[in-house]
Amino acid sequence: MENAYYSQAVHGPFELHDIGNLELEEGGTIRGCNLAVATHGRLNAAKDNAILVPTWYSGTNKILEQVFIGPGRALDPEKYCIIVVNQIGNGLSSSPHNTPAPAGAGHFPRVRIGDDVRAQHRLVTQVLGLERLALVVGGSMGAQQTYEWAVRYPEMVQRAAPIAGTARNTEHDFLFTETLCEAITSDPGFARGFYRSPEDVREGLLRHAKMWAVMGWSTEFFQAKRYRTLGFSSLDDFIVNFMFAYFSTMDPNNLLCMAWKWQRGDVSRMTGGDLRAALGRIRAKTFVMPMSSDMFFPPADCQAEWRLIPDAEFRPVETIDGHLALFGADPNAIAQIDRHLKELLAAKVA
Amino acid sequence: MENAYYSQAVHGPFELHDIGNLELEEGGTIRGCNLAVATHGRLNAAKDNAILVPTWYSGTNKILEQVFIGPGRALDPEKYCIIVVNQIGNGLSSSPHNTPAPAGAGHFPRVRIGDDVRAQHRLVTQVLGLERLALVVGGSMGAQQTYEWAVRYPEMVQRAAPIAGTARNTEHDFLFTETLCEAITSDPGFARGFYRSPEDVREGLLRHAKMWAVMGWSTEFFQAKRYRTLGFSSLDDFIVNFMFAYFSTMDPNNLLCMAWKWQRGDVSRMTGGDLRAALGRIRAKTFVMPMSSDMFFPPADCQAEWRLIPDAEFRPVETIDGHLALFGADPNAIAQIDRHLKELLAAKVA
Repeated sequence: MENAYYSQAVHGPFELHDIGNLELEEGGTIRGCNLAVATHGRLNAAKDNAILVPTWYSGTNKILEQVFIGPGRALDPEKYCIIVVNQIGNGLSSSPHNTPAPAGAGHFPRVRIGDDVRAQHRLVTQVLGLERLALVVGGSMGAQQTYEWAVRYPEMVQRAAPIAGTARNTEHDFLFTETLCEAITSDPGFARGFYRSPEDVREGLLRHAKMWAVMGWSTEFFQAKRYRTLGFSSLDDFIVNFMFAYFSTMDPNNLLCMAWKWQRGDVSRMTGGDLRAALGRIRAKTFVMPMSSDMFFPPADCQAEWRLIPDAEFRPVETIDGHLALFGADPNAIAQIDRHLKELLAAKVA
Repeated sequence: MENAYYSQAVHGPFELHDIGNLELEEGGTIRGCNLAVATHGRLNAAKDNAILVPTWYSGTNKILEQVFIGPGRALDPEKYCIIVVNQIGNGLSSSPHNTPAPAGAGHFPRVRIGDDVRAQHRLVTQVLGLERLALVVGGSMGAQQTYEWAVRYPEMVQRAAPIAGTARNTEHDFLFTETLCEAITSDPGFARGFYRSPEDVREGLLRHAKMWAVMGWSTEFFQAKRYRTLGFSSLDDFIVNFMFAYFSTMDPNNLLCMAWKWQRGDVSRMTGGDLRAALGRIRAKTFVMPMSSDMFFPPADCQAEWRLIPDAEFRPVETIDGHLALFGADPNAIAQIDRHLKELLAAKVA
């Protein structure tokens, strides 16, 4: 299904890498799995300056480039080779909307965080020839992938920075994501994923966007009328011209593919459900960085996991922008993240 | 429309008082407006021991009786005459489901918090002959009515205890409630309010219930698996046998009537939008009691209002049960509320 939103014009430049067939944990296979990759900076001769950045729900390489990457920043392309890999289902990598029938749309297979990380591992080892990652850093679902990397390939990940996300998704977060999914699937136009156009699911997408407005920011964000600072004249203006505008161009099946994956993020699948054993496998120096006002990946949930990681520091980011401080609208939050990441990158590791 | 849930068998005993036609702020009229009232204890000769308790969203006099009223409690029927008035739209007082066509169902008029409070005022002054209320206390939408009482009739309200609610609803809370409404109205079976049976709106009611699960408790509640303590074996069991069971028997139009009212609670309508002027009118000794972990009436929002009330104390209730600590499942939270209310009732007032 054509969708101009998922294009080089909007999100480029990125390269497509066909990593071959990807057999999935749930039993399906993505044939000729494409990973969309944006690279900033160059690999050095020792191949020890690679940073991997996985993407979050609905995000692509573009926002990560805009908010986190640049000369003088922690993620400095003059020092590091920064590899941003779009997650499966995000619309640039293999996704429901860009996979031809019969395997696309409502028939796209179930993908797990572990599938993404195995696909990324194939990319960085077989295509890019890397043996080590100086840092894996990501926010939200990017944090889920960061944890999965650090647990699954402990010998490869030297440093890890999960921001605003958890290693094992909580029941509360699962429920929240379920309500997001139901906002979309309950739209009669959704037709079990076989709509003719995302326009047919417009009402569902808008409900989904409004629920993001409720949970994505924080009560303090609205109390302070932060949306005015961001250039919106009123709550309505903000809902329509930011929240609706952001989500309404996206493909419903793509969002649902990511949401299903998000709900089930769980590194303890590798250790028979034992979270302590899973997190105990991590050898990366790890900074756990929740957003202080996050309503669904709250600091307390992240802190509980931090305690189980051998060499980890708990570095909450003070902000009233909630989870969506990831969007970069609070420069103070971004400055804190940069400071933490610089310190982490400067830390000696084994 | 018959609905066995809204009955004496389930919620009684209560009495129906026809207070006559109620002209509404939005322009409609409820003809022969019925208020369902449950009274505990007796009025003394001086008529100075009356306590008014308005109800919250979806709640009735029954849960207030079960959780807050009893000998030895702050709301002690041996000392006070405790008058629990069901809010308009809650299914016991005049409501969409029990108002005959053409004014019922989807044609039930818009009701505001101020309409409820004027109706209650008519009841307590004209029917019960009271000039003074020793205390008005309510949770959530009951807190909205409590504030409205204290601002609108300052000479009548000697003490006020708004629990887990605000005087002027916040934009965040408005948004949350909007998503609750849309969960119901987006169900094709809703048919603009002219469904044949609530069963036709089943899916919408269940989505609405699940969103309550996300926002009604707290992330700590789920982290601690509090639902197990409450007798539910798993998250699914809790969602189905508590959240779904609770809401699925209710009438969709009734819920929407209350939600619309809840969204627009605002005592500053009496003072041209000036909240400081409105809260400055309060002469009641007031205890402002948010739940510490409330996700949509958070302590910070309640604290901002508390600062504007002349004789008020800020008494947050420590609990991880979030907003729905009102249900009484955390005995420690209920004990705190009882302690505060006893102190408030013991306080000398002018």
